[in-house]
Amino acid sequence: MLTTPAAGSKPSEDPADIDRRDPESEIYARATAYRNWGRWGDDDVLGTLNFIDAAKRIEAAGLVREGRVVSLSLAFNTDGPQKGWRRRVNPIHTMTDTGSDAELGNQGFPHGIGGADDYITMPLQSSTQWDGLGHIFDHGKAWNGRRAGTTVTSDGDLVTGIEHAADVIVSRGVLLDVGRFLAPETGELPNGYGVTAADLDACIAAQGTSSTVGRGDIVVVRTGRLARARRDGWDDYAGGEAAGISLTAAGWIHRTEIAAIATDTWGFEVRPNEFDVPSFQPLHQVAIPNMGLTIGEMWDLDELAVACAELGRFDFLLSAPPLPITGAVGSPVNPVAIL
Amino acid sequence: MLTTPAAGSKPSEDPADIDRRDPESEIYARATAYRNWGRWGDDDVLGTLNFIDAAKRIEAAGLVREGRVVSLSLAFNTDGPQKGWRRRVNPIHTMTDTGSDAELGNQGFPHGIGGADDYITMPLQSSTQWDGLGHIFDHGKAWNGRRAGTTVTSDGDLVTGIEHAADVIVSRGVLLDVGRFLAPETGELPNGYGVTAADLDACIAAQGTSSTVGRGDIVVVRTGRLARARRDGWDDYAGGEAAGISLTAAGWIHRTEIAAIATDTWGFEVRPNEFDVPSFQPLHQVAIPNMGLTIGEMWDLDELAVACAELGRFDFLLSAPPLPITGAVGSPVNPVAIL
Amino acid sequence: MLTTPAAGSKPSEDPADIDRRDPESEIYARATAYRNWGRWGDDDVLGTLNFIDAAKRIEAAGLVREGRVVSLSLAFNTDGPQKGWRRRVNPIHTMTDTGSDAELGNQGFPHGIGGADDYITMPLQSSTQWDGLGHIFDHGKAWNGRRAGTTVTSDGDLVTGIEHAADVIVSRGVLLDVGRFLAPETGELPNGYGVTAADLDACIAAQGTSSTVGRGDIVVVRTGRLARARRDGWDDYAGGEAAGISLTAAGWIHRTEIAAIATDTWGFEVRPNEFDVPSFQPLHQVAIPNMGLTIGEMWDLDELAVACAELGRFDFLLSAPPLPITGAVGSPVNPVAIL
Amino acid sequence: MLTTPAAGSKPSEDPADIDRRDPESEIYARATAYRNWGRWGDDDVLGTLNFIDAAKRIEAAGLVREGRVVSLSLAFNTDGPQKGWRRRVNPIHTMTDTGSDAELGNQGFPHGIGGADDYITMPLQSSTQWDGLGHIFDHGKAWNGRRAGTTVTSDGDLVTGIEHAADVIVSRGVLLDVGRFLAPETGELPNGYGVTAADLDACIAAQGTSSTVGRGDIVVVRTGRLARARRDGWDDYAGGEAAGISLTAAGWIHRTEIAAIATDTWGFEVRPNEFDVPSFQPLHQVAIPNMGLTIGEMWDLDELAVACAELGRFDFLLSAPPLPITGAVGSPVNPVAIL
Repeated sequence: MLTTPAAGSKPSEDPADIDRRDPESEIYARATAYRNWGRWGDDDVLGTLNFIDAAKRIEAAGLVREGRVVSLSLAFNTDGPQKGWRRRVNPIHTMTDTGSDAELGNQGFPHGIGGADDYITMPLQSSTQWDGLGHIFDHGKAWNGRRAGTTVTSDGDLVTGIEHAADVIVSRGVLLDVGRFLAPETGELPNGYGVTAADLDACIAAQGTSSTVGRGDIVVVRTGRLARARRDGWDDYAGGEAAGISLTAAGWIHRTEIAAIATDTWGFEVRPNEFDVPSFQPLHQVAIPNMGLTIGEMWDLDELAVACAELGRFDFLLSAPPLPITGAVGSPVNPVAIL
Repeated sequence: MLTTPAAGSKPSEDPADIDRRDPESEIYARATAYRNWGRWGDDDVLGTLNFIDAAKRIEAAGLVREGRVVSLSLAFNTDGPQKGWRRRVNPIHTMTDTGSDAELGNQGFPHGIGGADDYITMPLQSSTQWDGLGHIFDHGKAWNGRRAGTTVTSDGDLVTGIEHAADVIVSRGVLLDVGRFLAPETGELPNGYGVTAADLDACIAAQGTSSTVGRGDIVVVRTGRLARARRDGWDDYAGGEAAGISLTAAGWIHRTEIAAIATDTWGFEVRPNEFDVPSFQPLHQVAIPNMGLTIGEMWDLDELAVACAELGRFDFLLSAPPLPITGAVGSPVNPVAIL
Repeated sequence: MLTTPAAGSKPSEDPADIDRRDPESEIYARATAYRNWGRWGDDDVLGTLNFIDAAKRIEAAGLVREGRVVSLSLAFNTDGPQKGWRRRVNPIHTMTDTGSDAELGNQGFPHGIGGADDYITMPLQSSTQWDGLGHIFDHGKAWNGRRAGTTVTSDGDLVTGIEHAADVIVSRGVLLDVGRFLAPETGELPNGYGVTAADLDACIAAQGTSSTVGRGDIVVVRTGRLARARRDGWDDYAGGEAAGISLTAAGWIHRTEIAAIATDTWGFEVRPNEFDVPSFQPLHQVAIPNMGLTIGEMWDLDELAVACAELGRFDFLLSAPPLPITGAVGSPVNPVAIL
Repeated sequence: MLTTPAAGSKPSEDPADIDRRDPESEIYARATAYRNWGRWGDDDVLGTLNFIDAAKRIEAAGLVREGRVVSLSLAFNTDGPQKGWRRRVNPIHTMTDTGSDAELGNQGFPHGIGGADDYITMPLQSSTQWDGLGHIFDHGKAWNGRRAGTTVTSDGDLVTGIEHAADVIVSRGVLLDVGRFLAPETGELPNGYGVTAADLDACIAAQGTSSTVGRGDIVVVRTGRLARARRDGWDDYAGGEAAGISLTAAGWIHRTEIAAIATDTWGFEVRPNEFDVPSFQPLHQVAIPNMGLTIGEMWDLDELAVACAELGRFDFLLSAPPLPITGAVGSPVNPVAIL
């Protein structure tokens, strides 16, 4: 039975207050407190991406002062972190025509032209990606209170497919390098560290005014987990322990009215999750179906962190539109920070 | 035997001058006249993308005055134009978890969380895409004069893979709506119409100063072919007849020093190609391996055309970084014009 | 509302008796009359394949008198009949290593060894295949009365996956060349012709004692539809009109106690289906979830038909075990008739 | 420089005689001694499969005395041995329609019918398989002396594709349970043990007359490696150490005139290979391109071994036709022993 929060009470933002034996109640309290169902109408397919407006994009374009582009994407190849969980393998790239065959004269084309062609097979969540609104459900409900079972079927997400965001996800990006802020010597948070609302606010304060976060911004949080994987090997980067956002930071995400958030980890939120009983990605359960939050995972924020530190500012134009794969619940993406 | 062009002579830019029985010589003349091998060093992997510099990107960002984003991407789904040529099928999207199973309680996750996951299998050239530098060869040579057979093998493009452009393709975009300019009533060029250098210059002049094209710009040329396919069905959109860039416009592409070019057609260049004997994509043969030009195909320029006409300007910030698929000779892309 | 059949009445085996406006009742009558639920226990995963026993296989092996093997499989390649319905495309075969690269010395192997490797991506129903017991449901019920929604999920067929038949489908095969029998001049039944129980019995009588059909046999019915496609092109072989088994032959299938049945058509049963209102594969609905019948489709029976006619006998050892793809609801198969 | 064998000399069949520093010469000696090029004509596409004749198949059918079928195939699923080497992953099975969606009424079919459909993506060498004649090359030469670079291109094996064997591979099978013979207590040979010609002959002698091996037979050799993997986990079953056929047994394979051979290991031959310098699958290099031998790998011989031991005989009808995947250099297969 769920513990119903007292009317008007707000869920605690202190991890010490979590009842580690009762994930369902802790999730429920935040799901109801931060639920955005109906906020953008019954037909909404964008959730918090609605916070991005024209003024925000114009502001963001004004941040392009160096003319520099930093890709926030990992490579898409077989040497990635995936180990097969839920059939998630690394991207498989194969050639259907090659320069070898062109050089050997095997292609049968006229006047000396030759060509190469290729294929990819990949889980949409295998490398740098956006989680779309159809990716997670809460007790059988999808974003905006829709039935999961009629929204996302074997034919894909029939309502909130990632294609709807194809012309939306361009905004002001803000890097919060929590790894560097909290662990200045290594730049890497320890696995299992849950980043709190207080941490995020303190990081903003420390980084200065270019880090102010508000409505329509896209926040990218660097934990240092990817830097460690790059140095030590993928090991259990996919699905294993990592620093990440604490369930208790759900309120911060909600009140800042950010459009989206991404991290340099597999799972965005802290792992192990903050419970002593079986649990799985509780913050996803609050954020995606209830808030309508689009979440980025496995983003490479290391070069961006260096660039921001050098420039002394942490905001930029972020262009990260997904591939409009019809009905997809996620999309590979090459997000670029334009500074 | 190839007809060697006279020293110092320039290939004609008038399609009437093409020897329609001798594609190899016509291609050779332009390949040698416009070859950029070595221009950016022996190790170059970017070709004309090198023309994009910081100043160009800052200029481009300054064009963001409406805060509006237009996606230039087609949908990625099975209802696309592909018909199987060279094993090019339309993207196949399948689900590995669904809301249906979440709702039925089949997933075994705790505390009411459910999830959906998905896969894609697709030729990288199946929908809106960039042709990378390893996509086309000229007499066994790849970009910069490299051997095709050791550059692009079954393991992919080992040298000029599309991943190298992941943090590059953000620049000023210019729409040349040649369809509207030459066919103002319909906005659609007839199939087989080869767009010449003179057409491009006249279109620029007609559209006004916002259409000026120079070093580092990315030009997107709308022929109206996609609008016709959208209205009448795909039919032979993939591989069939279409308006497109004339082989004779190779010089224009070269001297303007544009960084890249894209069209709303399957094949970028005019089809049928401009020869009476068997030929295949002669302008590709000049442009990709010899100039080092990155080419976009199957871009949806119709909404952009309307927006530009309304705004009375034709330039914008174009963000179109490819997915960094290691060793790929092309990449699906969702290019966005930010106005 | 369903018309409940009178107690003890048997569904008519005359197509003229079908109420062409009421598929649901016609199906229901046969589903209940021929239902085998529980016949082989509550845990059964094989259905009518249980009819094959050791004696039948020994009998079948005794039919190997010529030492000749005839493959009943179509090619698996991109030139197949599929056109994308329900994402069914033709098999896509790609190479990950080639002789080209071996010859060019690109592979890096020692002592002169070279290698080629390959991939396939395909719908399991794209070419010659078995339909497994999880392929079709009747009002939400799978074979043996199980719930469809917990039997075949996004994780596959958790109960009756085709892997269970991996060591089962070897038996006596009998060719009924109904195309030749009913249309001796062409050997091809017209599209839309529904093969009845009477047709099957008459064909057996005409072909002679080697065609006797009984418990545990696997019947392969040749209509000539494939021969026509081979001659005229695939056109709408997949999903279009074809001769096939009439819904009214369900009783014949049931009382003969055959183990499985296959045809040379896309859909096994007659198409258009025998109704004047929207309907879809009614005999599948009776046969798979209710009888527990394994059905083969797109089998190439033409060479076998010639061989049988020459030999003057129509039975043989049929070896057609599916690939044990865990949880699959169908399997590609290369059935071989050993004569 | 290769050491040319003295005229008329035969390569040693004693592993102690191998020059472990010179794989190229050791391979060359056997490649030339056992080469079958031209033996079945210049156009041959079957190699040693030609040894199977009608009489052999009739003999084999006569071995069906129990009416029992044993599948020799591993499961095709994601829990297999592959770890990504050369992009070899385990088979990926996904659903495009499910019983879940049928039960929820999501499918839109009439009269209560529902359906499930599925896909597979897999390397053809990912689970139980045949290596086709285009799988391995020797110094740029494919089977029968053809050029590798024009025989197996990006378009597949244009000459010796596995489809040619679709109606061939049915013959007498003989199990040589070398694991049980040499290690009677465990039934498992140690990793790195090279099975010699003498071992094979001794095993035959010990097993008795039903194990006699001759022209056209298909030999399946059980080492016990798979039993160990089944007990201890896959670990490095794919590509790691294993018992297997010694390079020195090439002569035995040649003189017995067997049609094909298969083992319960990843790589058929002993691993590590029998050299102290870098080497890779030397027996493949002798057997496939030079002898024209079709080789089976990752066959599950454990249940068969128990059955044969119980029955006191080791031969059976083996039906193992590949899927006719056009141009494939290998094929997944579900081989069945019919006893």
